[in-house]
Amino acid sequence: MILQENQAFTHQFKVDDRIYNGFISVFEDRNALHTDEVFAKNKGFQSKVMHGNILNGFLSYFIGELLPTEEVMILSQTINFKNPVYLDDVLNFEAVVTDQSEAVQVNTLSFKFINADLKTVASGKIQIKEFQ
Amino acid sequence: MILQENQAFTHQFKVDDRIYNGFISVFEDRNALHTDEVFAKNKGFQSKVMHGNILNGFLSYFIGELLPTEEVMILSQTINFKNPVYLDDVLNFEAVVTDQSEAVQVNTLSFKFINADLKTVASGKIQIKEFQ
Repeated sequence: MILQENQAFTHQFKVDDRIYNGFISVFEDRNALHTDEVFAKNKGFQSKVMHGNILNGFLSYFIGELLPTEEVMILSQTINFKNPVYLDDVLNFEAVVTDQSEAVQVNTLSFKFINADLKTVASGKIQIKEFQ
Repeated sequence: MILQENQAFTHQFKVDDRIYNGFISVFEDRNALHTDEVFAKNKGFQSKVMHGNILNGFLSYFIGELLPTEEVMILSQTINFKNPVYLDDVLNFEAVVTDQSEAVQVNTLSFKFINADLKTVASGKIQIKEFQ
């Protein structure tokens, strides 16, 4: 296997206007929490809350483009949303290979997205198969 | 709570060119499995495989736009990818409220995406909080 147990990765993602508007334009989720400043503030948030599934799009990029091998495929994915993400937040992404199964060529990675206040905004696990 | 235990929902999603190219343009995952026909066929697939996280974008739309209340927020999400999705696949989406916690206003839904061959391409669970 090309990935190694305990191998760690980091990357920085920014939820900028291009990503936010692009996500809305592709998936058409215009829920008030994500698009209506007043609604979001009434619910106790600082501002409109970014779609959690934007982070799943970042995971797609991480797995597809940032690993030492391109020959991988996602088998499953779990994400827990812990704190809100706002427009222009810069998120530090950390992932580590926590487990490997040589027999089926499957890696399990744990990941976190951490905001500028050092709060974990989301964490989870992702299983990927290596083709080799 | 507005959602009800055992309440079921269905919707049809199509992974068309607009969604596929839009996802790539927003998240920049150009992994060969998703963009290179020859590579994907060499790995045993019929054609290039659509990004699994496109289905997570559909989940965002479902939760944000198709429920009987807009006043919800995703807490966590798990998805298992079982069969490949190809360009122009039409997916029947089914979701059901399997569990509710009145105390914390949280619903758990189980969902499936089923292709035209009646194969489940992905299934999972999503937890959402009602604001009311």
